[in-house]
Amino acid sequence: MLTQAQVDAARRRAADMLAAAGIVLTEAERANIEVADLGLGDLERTGLELVTYVNTDRYCAKELVMFGGQTCPEHRHPPVAGGPGKMETFRCRWGRVWLYVPGEPAASPKARVPAGSEDYYTVFHEIELTPGGQYTIPSNALHWFQAGPDGAIVSEFSSTSRDESDIFTDPRIRRAPEVDS
Amino acid sequence: MLTQAQVDAARRRAADMLAAAGIVLTEAERANIEVADLGLGDLERTGLELVTYVNTDRYCAKELVMFGGQTCPEHRHPPVAGGPGKMETFRCRWGRVWLYVPGEPAASPKARVPAGSEDYYTVFHEIELTPGGQYTIPSNALHWFQAGPDGAIVSEFSSTSRDESDIFTDPRIRRAPEVDS
Repeated sequence: MLTQAQVDAARRRAADMLAAAGIVLTEAERANIEVADLGLGDLERTGLELVTYVNTDRYCAKELVMFGGQTCPEHRHPPVAGGPGKMETFRCRWGRVWLYVPGEPAASPKARVPAGSEDYYTVFHEIELTPGGQYTIPSNALHWFQAGPDGAIVSEFSSTSRDESDIFTDPRIRRAPEVDS
Repeated sequence: MLTQAQVDAARRRAADMLAAAGIVLTEAERANIEVADLGLGDLERTGLELVTYVNTDRYCAKELVMFGGQTCPEHRHPPVAGGPGKMETFRCRWGRVWLYVPGEPAASPKARVPAGSEDYYTVFHEIELTPGGQYTIPSNALHWFQAGPDGAIVSEFSSTSRDESDIFTDPRIRRAPEVDS
């Protein structure tokens, strides 16, 4: 669990990265950047920062901000409410990100699985995204991603987000944000 | 109808605006920027430039580029294929845009309806968007928008785009791109 000071510091750092990339946020958006440590309490290695622009019952758009080497751990978006699971398109805006999906595994993956969590990373088909690069992840497909050493900013365009339905491979993960204030 | 030289010039101009705003496109995306004069052959006044990042059967994301004073004329997205019409969220990234939707009309609208087309602009509730500002247009609601004097870049997040179904108030308009080469 993160302290409020850790959350505040991560928000400032993410806001600075977005501003440096020319992405303008409102003051309210900056103050409410979501800092997701996924319950592991190890934000520098595992987690990400998010700005959700809109999430309707039809579509969703977010910016994902990742610090250098930060990893969003392996998960999938299962079918919910009688419909297919979330489908999402990642478009890299700044930095570099390695995305892993099912398929032929990379012989030498460029990302490093966080030490101690090796059992919870199972897909290793590698897609490297740099600015202008994009990739669409089908509904219900396992995926995980890690920023390069300088971090990354990724726009996510998708169907409706229902984070509480996400299924992570690591059973220790909790998606709902929690803050120890 | 536009000549290929006019299309090429508009593509270069839109690509330059996107680059200046820090939005990175691939070479293929730059070469294929959609230049929509909507059949009126008066691109400087009526039309817009578009980059469609993704358009699936669930969601769509585009960048809309508008030159200074350019107007996207009044239209709506009706129900199609047994589903509701397109719902869309505009987020201003650069410049300034005035968006008009149904509701209390502005006493002195900041945009100017293109001369000779006054009959085809009927909604005048004004929303001004500058970088970081956004607005969601409900399905089937009439809307039109005009860039400020320096132009605008607007990210559009939406449900599936089916441009061929759009209904424009001006019966002279054709949505499908046409080029006189």
